Order: sequence, then C-alpha cells, then structure tokens
Amino acid sequence: MTLKLYDYLESGNGYKIRLLLHQLGVEYERIELDITKGETRTPEFLALNRNGRIPLLVLEDGTPLPESDAILFYLAEGTPLLPADRLGRAQVLRWMFFEQYSHEPYIAVVRFWVHTGVASQRPEEVKTRRQRGYEALGVMEDHLRGREFFVAETYTIADIALYAYTHVAHEGGFELEEYPAVRAWLERVRSQPRHIPITEA
Amino acid sequence: MTLKLYDYLESGNGYKIRLLLHQLGVEYERIELDITKGETRTPEFLALNRNGRIPLLVLEDGTPLPESDAILFYLAEGTPLLPADRLGRAQVLRWMFFEQYSHEPYIAVVRFWVHTGVASQRPEEVKTRRQRGYEALGVMEDHLRGREFFVAETYTIADIALYAYTHVAHEGGFELEEYPAVRAWLERVRSQPRHIPITEA
Repeated sequence: MTLKLYDYLESGNGYKIRLLLHQLGVEYERIELDITKGETRTPEFLALNRNGRIPLLVLEDGTPLPESDAILFYLAEGTPLLPADRLGRAQVLRWMFFEQYSHEPYIAVVRFWVHTGVASQRPEEVKTRRQRGYEALGVMEDHLRGREFFVAETYTIADIALYAYTHVAHEGGFELEEYPAVRAWLERVRSQPRHIPITEA
Repeated sequence: MTLKLYDYLESGNGYKIRLLLHQLGVEYERIELDITKGETRTPEFLALNRNGRIPLLVLEDGTPLPESDAILFYLAEGTPLLPADRLGRAQVLRWMFFEQYSHEPYIAVVRFWVHTGVASQRPEEVKTRRQRGYEALGVMEDHLRGREFFVAETYTIADIALYAYTHVAHEGGFELEEYPAVRAWLERVRSQPRHIPITEA
C-alpha cells in the first residue's frame, strides 16, 4: 500500500507534507477534503482522526498519523532534512512547537478568516490575532538575523513548518516590509531544489 | 555547569519538565519567574528566550532550549520514556502537538484566567474555550478507552505532556465525570514511580 495523504489544498499544514514528500521524491496518493464543507467531520474521517483535522497521513500498513509537524518528523527521519544529533533534533522541535503555538493560531487563522469571509465580522479578534502574528514574525526576524536557516545552518523541516504559513501571511493582511531577514529566508526556502508552490498538489 | 530550568510553579508546562527531571533522577537548578509580574519579559530573560515564555531549559554548555514538549523530547532521548522506534516517536510527537494546539490553549488558559481572576470579565470567551477543552477531553477519552497509556502501552512523555494540565483541569471549572477512561489514566500516571505533584519544586 502506498502512503495516503488526507489534505486540503489551501491548508499550509497540508502543504508542509506535500512539499516535503515532493522534495524527498516519495510517491503518495492525495485525498482532498474540503474543511469548509465539513468533510473532515464525517464518521469515516473521524474514525481515522478523532480530532477531525487534516493533514492526516495513512502509512503503508494502514496506521493513521495526524498532526502536520509529527508527520514531518516521521517522514524526515534519516534524511538530511532532520539533524541526526540530539540537540539539533530538539531545536527543530522547538521551532515546530513555536509554529503551532505562537504562529499558526494567529497567522494561519487570520488568513483562513479572510479567505472564508468571516474576518470582517470579527474585527477585534482579527486585530488581536494580527498583533500576536506580528510578535511571532518578530521572534523569527531576530533569530534569522545573521542566520541562513532556523537550525544548524541547513534547510530542515523546521524551515518547512514555518515557511508554510509565513509565505502566505500577506493573504491574511500581514505586511512583511519590516522583516527583511524573514523575507530573505523565504526566498532561500523557495530556491531549494524541488520546491513546489502551495497551489500544487 | 548543571542544568538550569527557568520555571513558574503554577505552570503545567513547567511541571512537565520538573516531573520528568525528577523521574529521571537528574539534578538541576530551578529559577522561579512570576509570569504574572512580567518576569519573563525582562531584557535578561528575552535574551535567553526571545519568545518570553517559561519553561526554558539552559543546557550544561549554556544553550537555551525553550518549548516544554521539545525539552521533554530532548531529556527523554535514550530513556524508556521515549520509544526508540520511528513510529513510536512520531506517535509521541503527535500527542504532544495535539496537547499544544488542541488542549493547552483551552484547558490551561481557562485555568490561568480563573487563577488570575480575569475569567469573570470574559464569560463568552471562557464558554468557547471550555467547549473546545471538552472536545479535547473527548478525543483523549476515546483514545484511552481500552488503553493504559497514550502510546505503545507504556508510560511516555506523551502522558506527561497531557497529564500536566488535565489533572488540574478542575481548577478551570472542567468536570471529568463523563470521562472515566481519562480519570483512570490520570490515576495510572499518578502512581508511576517517583511521581511528584505540581506544587513540588
């Protein structure tokens, strides 16, 4: 059985997996679920992921693995995209947890609200989340100043995890003008071999 | 140099590290910072963790490592608390990312709001977050039905990560009556060798 990825094309969390699988040259079957139409809350899908979220990777033996950054870690084991040493791995995880806790709930969620048209109905919440999103960008900017990539001066899954929603932050109304180190890093990630855009399945 | 843990006694995220270090029998120095008094936003602390959060572990060589679940992963490497196989490790991470994304922002944050007295000022947000917290407890309940622990039928850092805020969920007004599998699992975690309570430094 081949790898199966339950995915939603607009999702940055899904894009992380698509990008890594493409860069690793791994074949897989992609199943598109429209999260705006409740397709991740059907009994069939909830049986695979009780938390009702994409991406979900179903392994060759049928084991379902949810959580985008756990999937990245699983797929990157033994490749140059995940450091082999204990501290390097911990630093990769540190940035992936930062992404899920301090970045995604603000930068990804505002973009989703803009895309689905609900942003205009909750201006106060958008304002608060934009502010926190900018705080996350500030943390990234300071870290990237004088660095090429997030960890170990090499392209890793920490960069993939943070690139996914940062490169489309403007779709949520975020301005990156004041974040030159972030912009230069986005360009470096984009120029990696076998890069694909978020729109490519 | 010994390990240094920047911590806040009430924090479940800090407790995760305290509990693991105690169970591993690792000596460390603990530095208490009161997050309600801005002690994690001083220039000195921001130089160690630009994201201004505890827990922060400073390694023997002076390297600062933030993010509670990344610290757990780092400390548990090579111990029975982290599976050695690729899929087991990914499943541990899957539950730790679930904890940080779908559990902590609801169960921990409401508890913090109750402790700091701001909960009564934002009843609507408390209501929404309580609902999402119960959803997370539902995911845990379904997974734990017929299982002893979250991953590989053995006590791992995934259990520590989820125990930290689940066992004090009642302090945020969460009722666990309808979650018998979660309650039995809390008891199993509590009865592990060298367990310490959250109040113990």
